[in-house]
Amino acid sequence: GHEGYYRGDCCFGAFVGILEALRDKVGFPFTQIPAEMMGFGAGGVSGWGTTCGALIGAAAAINLVTEKDLARKIVSELMGLYSVTPFPSETSNNYAANHEFLVTEYKSDKVLPQSVSNSPLCHVSVTEWCKAAGIASKTPERAERCGRLAGDVAAMAAELLNANLATAFVPAFQFSQEAQGCMSCHTLGDNFAAGNFIQGKGECLSCHEPHQ
Amino acid sequence: GHEGYYRGDCCFGAFVGILEALRDKVGFPFTQIPAEMMGFGAGGVSGWGTTCGALIGAAAAINLVTEKDLARKIVSELMGLYSVTPFPSETSNNYAANHEFLVTEYKSDKVLPQSVSNSPLCHVSVTEWCKAAGIASKTPERAERCGRLAGDVAAMAAELLNANLATAFVPAFQFSQEAQGCMSCHTLGDNFAAGNFIQGKGECLSCHEPHQ
Repeated sequence: GHEGYYRGDCCFGAFVGILEALRDKVGFPFTQIPAEMMGFGAGGVSGWGTTCGALIGAAAAINLVTEKDLARKIVSELMGLYSVTPFPSETSNNYAANHEFLVTEYKSDKVLPQSVSNSPLCHVSVTEWCKAAGIASKTPERAERCGRLAGDVAAMAAELLNANLATAFVPAFQFSQEAQGCMSCHTLGDNFAAGNFIQGKGECLSCHEPHQ
Repeated sequence: GHEGYYRGDCCFGAFVGILEALRDKVGFPFTQIPAEMMGFGAGGVSGWGTTCGALIGAAAAINLVTEKDLARKIVSELMGLYSVTPFPSETSNNYAANHEFLVTEYKSDKVLPQSVSNSPLCHVSVTEWCKAAGIASKTPERAERCGRLAGDVAAMAAELLNANLATAFVPAFQFSQEAQGCMSCHTLGDNFAAGNFIQGKGECLSCHEPHQ
């Protein structure tokens, strides 16, 4: 993941980190999948700051080895865990400080500040980190932070996949009480007047004002 | 796109619509790419309502036939066009009304209301449509709307790719004056105090309150 970020940014990085493990362990057909096809996801999909590219890359890799319904459960769990996890992880920070990642020259080898995004969106995740760190977005430190995050997200995806191999996947992530309150009305449903004009889930109040 | 949505929802649908055209016209290596790997993108990435899955599927297909830098330019343009286009298109509405899509049974064959999202996010796009139509989110009409949108987005991506084959790609999409104002400070940059703590772009004011 981290080394892949250096080669092709977050989405390619998270994808190739898992794909190359599959190529090494399994070989065909994973040797036929061009990792470069996920380059588009960088910067929250080609710079737009929407879904974090590392999530998209990891999600595509998850879906390479699981059928649709299971993939969606695992990806949804990954989105949830991402939202509540402080990035970069301590593990990633230590790898960098000890020069244990697979790159020779580091954008930064400092232990970097951590932040929690409460959102799977790139522009929220990056801004929360920039504000926590007091560091601007076009800096070696912010790029390094996203590289470590790409490694962290690939590792989280691998853990979810391995746990599912051991026993049937059981989602554990839960939204806050507040968000569950929002989503008790604002959800996929057939009653427009009751607020069922939504397709989505998340910590609503991290973007929206609450109403009565 | 539309028929693919019926098989595997928006992300798979937009992806497979382009992929199958490539398989038919070119064959190998596109015959080696499992379209099922994009099933995860449904509902704005596994139901979260983040980036529209049709955009992700079309973006992956664009990146299958273009290298990274060009792919990102074309995908960014697609995100912009998506944000300002009324969906479903008249063309799609007419196809459905005349039963010209590749499905035999329709979720709905009505001419559906159109809406503009001002955003590449699924949950914004769906909610704007539900509100314009007065129709709830878990209905055959809303599903059909997203199926037509998947066809529309695949067609837009194919048009952008074909235009690029004819002559080098030139982006045309422009953000509103307001958003350009936001992004003159809130952009990828190295000056934190000036507001460079962002990675992303979009119609900021469709989610955020303006400030002085």
